[in-house]
Amino acid sequence: MKIEIKGVGITPFGELWEEDELSLARLAVSQALADAQCEIGDIDVLIVGNMLLPHTSQQSHIGAHIASGLGFFGQALLVEGACASGGLAIRQALSLLHAKMAHRVLVVGVEKMSDSQPSETTAFLMGASSEGERLAGATFPGLYGMMHRKYQDLYGASDEEMCASSIKNHFHGSLNPKAHFQTEITTEQILTSAMIADPLRLLHCSPISDGAAAIILEATTRPTKGSVLMMGSGQGGDDLSLIRRKSITSLSATKKAFKQALLESDIKLSQIDVVELHDCFSIAEIMAIEDLGFVEAGKGAHALSQGFGRLGTKGVILNTSGGLKACGHPVGATGVKQVVEIAQQLLGRSGKRQVAKATFGLAHNVGGTGATAVVHVMGRSE
Amino acid sequence: MKIEIKGVGITPFGELWEEDELSLARLAVSQALADAQCEIGDIDVLIVGNMLLPHTSQQSHIGAHIASGLGFFGQALLVEGACASGGLAIRQALSLLHAKMAHRVLVVGVEKMSDSQPSETTAFLMGASSEGERLAGATFPGLYGMMHRKYQDLYGASDEEMCASSIKNHFHGSLNPKAHFQTEITTEQILTSAMIADPLRLLHCSPISDGAAAIILEATTRPTKGSVLMMGSGQGGDDLSLIRRKSITSLSATKKAFKQALLESDIKLSQIDVVELHDCFSIAEIMAIEDLGFVEAGKGAHALSQGFGRLGTKGVILNTSGGLKACGHPVGATGVKQVVEIAQQLLGRSGKRQVAKATFGLAHNVGGTGATAVVHVMGRSE
Repeated sequence: MKIEIKGVGITPFGELWEEDELSLARLAVSQALADAQCEIGDIDVLIVGNMLLPHTSQQSHIGAHIASGLGFFGQALLVEGACASGGLAIRQALSLLHAKMAHRVLVVGVEKMSDSQPSETTAFLMGASSEGERLAGATFPGLYGMMHRKYQDLYGASDEEMCASSIKNHFHGSLNPKAHFQTEITTEQILTSAMIADPLRLLHCSPISDGAAAIILEATTRPTKGSVLMMGSGQGGDDLSLIRRKSITSLSATKKAFKQALLESDIKLSQIDVVELHDCFSIAEIMAIEDLGFVEAGKGAHALSQGFGRLGTKGVILNTSGGLKACGHPVGATGVKQVVEIAQQLLGRSGKRQVAKATFGLAHNVGGTGATAVVHVMGRSE
Repeated sequence: MKIEIKGVGITPFGELWEEDELSLARLAVSQALADAQCEIGDIDVLIVGNMLLPHTSQQSHIGAHIASGLGFFGQALLVEGACASGGLAIRQALSLLHAKMAHRVLVVGVEKMSDSQPSETTAFLMGASSEGERLAGATFPGLYGMMHRKYQDLYGASDEEMCASSIKNHFHGSLNPKAHFQTEITTEQILTSAMIADPLRLLHCSPISDGAAAIILEATTRPTKGSVLMMGSGQGGDDLSLIRRKSITSLSATKKAFKQALLESDIKLSQIDVVELHDCFSIAEIMAIEDLGFVEAGKGAHALSQGFGRLGTKGVILNTSGGLKACGHPVGATGVKQVVEIAQQLLGRSGKRQVAKATFGLAHNVGGTGATAVVHVMGRSE
């Protein structure tokens, strides 16, 4: 049995003052349903990926809340794993389909972040981390700032090299009409942008965004030729606190998730054409390409500064959506958006940012500072 | 392939001032691991059922949070569906096992409710309902109070008959050393207890409790003789708002979940010996026995007043744990506790509250006012 992507949908990402979580979910879902040529009543199960609604509003029972907003009265649930909520939701959808507990599952990742004060949102986001880190006064940029600094200390990467991921992703974002930021940036702009948590500056960091993405998955024994199949899925875990990890310049959860997903997909790393990876901060993209095995440990920043992963170069292309940095990072939506972007690439629908002849793709989603990671491998059905 | 319950654990339920969510989870899990004769490292996936942590603390990423507290660094995630979070978590565990995405899954339901002011907790609990109901000033007892009144209006049930479920469940609770309330109550005590939301009085309502329950599920082709098997699982949904439902004296989500679970289990309703059902308020138990088909619509209150479901009577026995009313209702833990109680009954471990020759059991878990329902059917392996 294969799992086929029957339809995808995505809203613009950004500060969407006119929208709430329900209107965002409706927009993404209506596109996915149209794409799949089915109706909401044809769905067996709705899985929602969301992190912040219980913090920003009084809402819980979030599966039923989004379901009611969609006029869907079948089975609904929320899956949460901080910024990896979307990836986990897709993984649980695959589980229901493989278990034959559902035939068609709708996954919606959604986050409405701009209605809170930025300082409040920052505090809510620290919910992804440990109590000890919160009580010590750490912020998310603070924690990733430590990883960034340690990486530079350990491997001698220059400040300029540490900017390459943001520059590439803003270039890709400039080609994505749904990206939060559609403008290119330079090394100089990054290194003179506001200091957020030394050594992290504003333009090393992904923004606070609103947005939703939706995907319809179906179990089938006869996949449609040319459709996109979910070929492999992996998940890894690690301690919530950085202080209790063996390394803070590598995420063991990513390594575990990737190993499992690649093994299941039965393809080689070198066959992957396009990757959406979790660049919540520039250091996160550097660690990801090393942990996913594209580049040797310690060489990621340099490789990116040499153009690795940029549209127009040979080899794998990274974060064509603009990544979390430029496309935006509505946390519960991100993991679903990544799979939507890969699906669109494999279907040849990506317009100016299309990767030629993309056949296999990978999505890499991280929760918090790496206590959760989810990897999915996709491929075009022959 | 069968899914076998390899181990169960449960903390005392009540106002546990010395405990937090991590110590509660650790206590329940240590029992379940000992029962299953395995170690935390033998677990593939941890699924947590919890509703209130994001409201009562700054914590999100709750799967990883509980996992770290248990010293578990495998795959972890949170499943949320308000008071049905525990039942949904078990259903997702079955899905992972049937899909062969895991061999051994640990499900932990946990809730620490007593650290907030009761008025705050009441507000947090309204997160299980719709924004419209919250903005209209409704409380949970208020919503169930409407159902209670409508039921009496429709079917002419007397005030005394509406007390029977609380009386039975307190009697059962008096036999359960882990129950929040272990004292019997009378009709007079109920009808003179404080008015909470007319016509609901204090002793019609389940309490605010702390507690955790854990269960270890394993996929096997050769179940151990005499062990407990998960035979059927069902889930149903409905609109989050009472006002948009066809009926408020019946939960269509329960009916859908039950139909699916019974069908899958391949047994008849009449074969079920013991049931844990979702009696968050006395009216909820009345609706449940009608929606599950044990009693005709409109006759539930009367049947309970005649002793239906009470230990010592013939036929099915209801809520031997004391139910949500007397055992307590730590919301995320409840759905897991129900399955633990049924497993213990089928294993003959229930001491003074043991149902003789219990072979088949059912657990019924509801989210909010019925936008989510989950039903599991269990049986002893022959």
